[in-house]
Amino acid sequence: MPPEIRAIGIEGIPEVRDGDDVAALIMTAARGQGTAIETGDVLVVTQKIVSKAEGRVISIESVEASPLAIAITEGHRRDPRHTELILRESRRIVRMDRGVIISETYHGFHCANAGIDASNIPGEGTVALLPVDSDASARRIRQAVKEESGATVGVIISDTFGRPWRNGATDVAIGVAGLEPMLSYVGQEDTHGNMMYTTVICVADELAAMAELVGGKVANVPVAVIKGYPFEPSETATHDSLLRDPDKDLFR
Amino acid sequence: MPPEIRAIGIEGIPEVRDGDDVAALIMTAARGQGTAIETGDVLVVTQKIVSKAEGRVISIESVEASPLAIAITEGHRRDPRHTELILRESRRIVRMDRGVIISETYHGFHCANAGIDASNIPGEGTVALLPVDSDASARRIRQAVKEESGATVGVIISDTFGRPWRNGATDVAIGVAGLEPMLSYVGQEDTHGNMMYTTVICVADELAAMAELVGGKVANVPVAVIKGYPFEPSETATHDSLLRDPDKDLFR
Repeated sequence: MPPEIRAIGIEGIPEVRDGDDVAALIMTAARGQGTAIETGDVLVVTQKIVSKAEGRVISIESVEASPLAIAITEGHRRDPRHTELILRESRRIVRMDRGVIISETYHGFHCANAGIDASNIPGEGTVALLPVDSDASARRIRQAVKEESGATVGVIISDTFGRPWRNGATDVAIGVAGLEPMLSYVGQEDTHGNMMYTTVICVADELAAMAELVGGKVANVPVAVIKGYPFEPSETATHDSLLRDPDKDLFR
Repeated sequence: MPPEIRAIGIEGIPEVRDGDDVAALIMTAARGQGTAIETGDVLVVTQKIVSKAEGRVISIESVEASPLAIAITEGHRRDPRHTELILRESRRIVRMDRGVIISETYHGFHCANAGIDASNIPGEGTVALLPVDSDASARRIRQAVKEESGATVGVIISDTFGRPWRNGATDVAIGVAGLEPMLSYVGQEDTHGNMMYTTVICVADELAAMAELVGGKVANVPVAVIKGYPFEPSETATHDSLLRDPDKDLFR
């Protein structure tokens, strides 16, 4: 059999509310469409439904904009109270221009507007923040799947990030559980006996990207089950290994 | 039926040599493993076999290192003649440190060492350069598949690039044919009626990433066929739309 990997979108997940059990909603929807969740699968769960379940959807009515937030937003579409939330979720501002803020979140992610946006949220003036601890979110989902179905899966929490140099955004991993996010070929030989000195692949980001292709932004498919990818199990994986040490980051 | 996308690795492609017909090798290997190549499929072809077929594998014996190349490489593992090739393939040096050069290639790609490496190449002292025109490479493969099989496919030439801020590398698209590499949601409404103002997804990079998961670096699976992804056909697509305008690149 040739190698094959499949991504199956999970449809029929209802609008997620604060306090919902995301894992239960995923498993019910998967059953409803006849998709088995099995040991060795990777569940890629988009950040938005996790944030909703964890009460990270905020009404900007409850926020007071600082003078800085007001100044930054001047003349732009965004509400200054939304900008205030972006500043509060950031630990470092990389650049700000034309109302867009590129910052480093307190998790260590570099992205636009601290990962805060208003898409796929019901109601005016509400925005979703990133989960407080997206690895813990992934671990909770993984544990609940294990308890309910007996399946040992990998879980990735994904979000859509832009990047330098290349147009458009791609989905990347912001939280992981049960799988090693990086695959290192260092010290291995290729088929021609050449030593691979430096190749490390961020498979977690590639799995998140694959899931985005089957999910999409308007189709209401917030979860994908990936089957056939032989990931390296890990009980201790976190998103920290996804973050490049600034001192070693020649790309920065 | 729930949405499903599959990536099937093509095995049994022989060592590619200068002048080989890559499309013919791919189709023969696909037939050999019982994988049909059909209209609507996306063929993701790794850069290395394309470079080999196009005579872009170079013996560094034939290269004379400049004083700059010698100075840069001083005390590092790489041969200064290899460094010389990196400088020749670059139009802008972003950063150089510890023997690694981050540069912008003349295609406009930002990557380490101008995309030149020695992995998966037979012979000592040989390196592979990126294809001269990777969109033309993709178009040639697409045309040959059409003529031989009648199938209208999308073709992506992929390579493995590092990136700022995040550890590890992922496969991205460096050449495209027959498919629109970017998917824009601008002006569309999400399921809650929120207008999506800015979301543009680089699906070509996500397809390349998906293919990497089934290919890998040491498994000799240099091509993947992706089935089930409803890409937007384009007869005029090029990698140019993948490159962020420096004046608009807040991430840079």
